Amino acid sequence: MRRRAGKTNVRERMTRHRLLIEYDGEPYSGWQRQDNAASVQGEIERAVGAINGAPATVHGAGRTDAGVHAKGQVAHVDLARAWDGFKLREALNAHLAGRRIAILAASPAAADFDARRDAVYREYIYRLVNRRAPLTFDLGRAWRAKRPLDAGAMHEAAQALCGRHDFTTFRDAQCQAASPLRTLDRFEVTRSGDEIACIVGARSFLHRQVRSMVGSLVEVGLGKWSARDLKVALDAADRSRCGPVAPADGLYLMRVDYL
Amino acid sequence: MRRRAGKTNVRERMTRHRLLIEYDGEPYSGWQRQDNAASVQGEIERAVGAINGAPATVHGAGRTDAGVHAKGQVAHVDLARAWDGFKLREALNAHLAGRRIAILAASPAAADFDARRDAVYREYIYRLVNRRAPLTFDLGRAWRAKRPLDAGAMHEAAQALCGRHDFTTFRDAQCQAASPLRTLDRFEVTRSGDEIACIVGARSFLHRQVRSMVGSLVEVGLGKWSARDLKVALDAADRSRCGPVAPADGLYLMRVDYL
Repeated sequence: MRRRAGKTNVRERMTRHRLLIEYDGEPYSGWQRQDNAASVQGEIERAVGAINGAPATVHGAGRTDAGVHAKGQVAHVDLARAWDGFKLREALNAHLAGRRIAILAASPAAADFDARRDAVYREYIYRLVNRRAPLTFDLGRAWRAKRPLDAGAMHEAAQALCGRHDFTTFRDAQCQAASPLRTLDRFEVTRSGDEIACIVGARSFLHRQVRSMVGSLVEVGLGKWSARDLKVALDAADRSRCGPVAPADGLYLMRVDYL
Repeated sequence: MRRRAGKTNVRERMTRHRLLIEYDGEPYSGWQRQDNAASVQGEIERAVGAINGAPATVHGAGRTDAGVHAKGQVAHVDLARAWDGFKLREALNAHLAGRRIAILAASPAAADFDARRDAVYREYIYRLVNRRAPLTFDLGRAWRAKRPLDAGAMHEAAQALCGRHDFTTFRDAQCQAASPLRTLDRFEVTRSGDEIACIVGARSFLHRQVRSMVGSLVEVGLGKWSARDLKVALDAADRSRCGPVAPADGLYLMRVDYL
């Protein structure tokens, strides 16, 4: 709120809105606005500027990395006037045509609703395609694992990650979070044909935590690591014990829940 | 076989192979090789030429139109020597990298196997996404229907198309087939969330038959046509009675069966 100091009058006239957003992350440098690269936030702020008559910051619940997708990102934005949700969605989508970003829903929100800080649950899916043939439809949208993976073994090993732990092993060296402690509510690995889905839920995640955990679980699926090796790596709280980090392609922010 | 007249000796040394093929049709002018446009057949023949040491024609079971996709196209090709199926698949895929075409399986075939003429069943899926928001992941891969569709009404109406009929109403004016008679074995319309899938099976189809039928069924789904209107249009055997033809984007050749 620091940036808004002294702008109380302007802010009082603003009306906060909530957006539900889907995007193909492949063409973008990530959620976060950048000066010299296309970003999801930047594209949506361009659309908002066109209908709002003035620039406005779009605050996302999750700052997805380059190449990471979303089917249920949530954001809030303050607009100069109150919009009907249907009309706001239609207007923003008209300005997002061809950008592979869609506003799925828009609605007025409480003046103090904060998409990032108020989120109580985030769920990601990581998609693997377990086949030798190169990807066609899933190129950039899943991680192809050429060798057979034991999804059952991955699921069993993943249960050791659930609950409250120090996830130092599974966070990026650049992670800015003050604490490495997080609580995983859910980690399920399921197979359907040659598709393997890893569903991971928590109140919040560390930087690259899902990709770090999935990359390590693939070592289990290949038979290189045992379930015990994964547990030992977690308990070591040592980044050098992490397996190869899974690529961004397969990661989707699926939903963000609020109280 | 006309082109092979007088080449009996060469042909006797050839070994026929069968390919199972998946492709994203969006970047292609269709299956069929063309002089001035990228085609699926042309790309696969380029890959075959690279490993075979000589050009070879790849004969597909279905000549899909521009923008139409396949998850189970079948083709045959005569190669200069016999290949192990695994190695043939790997070698062709190496030459198809980045083309959004993948050989899912390859195997030796009987010398008289003909992918097109021997096919006894072909199945297509037509994918609709029934929502107002623009498509992101499904751009070019489904038809977005913005207004609500009644999939149950579409399914019921579609049953009148099953069985043996004169499909003149539902074939392209340019269709080259000698007879407009075809036998539909299956036509199912199912909804899952905002996705509607039309599954259509027959020994063979007329040109643009699936897209013509689906386009007319969408009129039923919108409530513009009754089931009876669809039946009357079929019985009229008159191309001018067809509804708007559905775009190529949503059409997938899913499988081809042989005895």
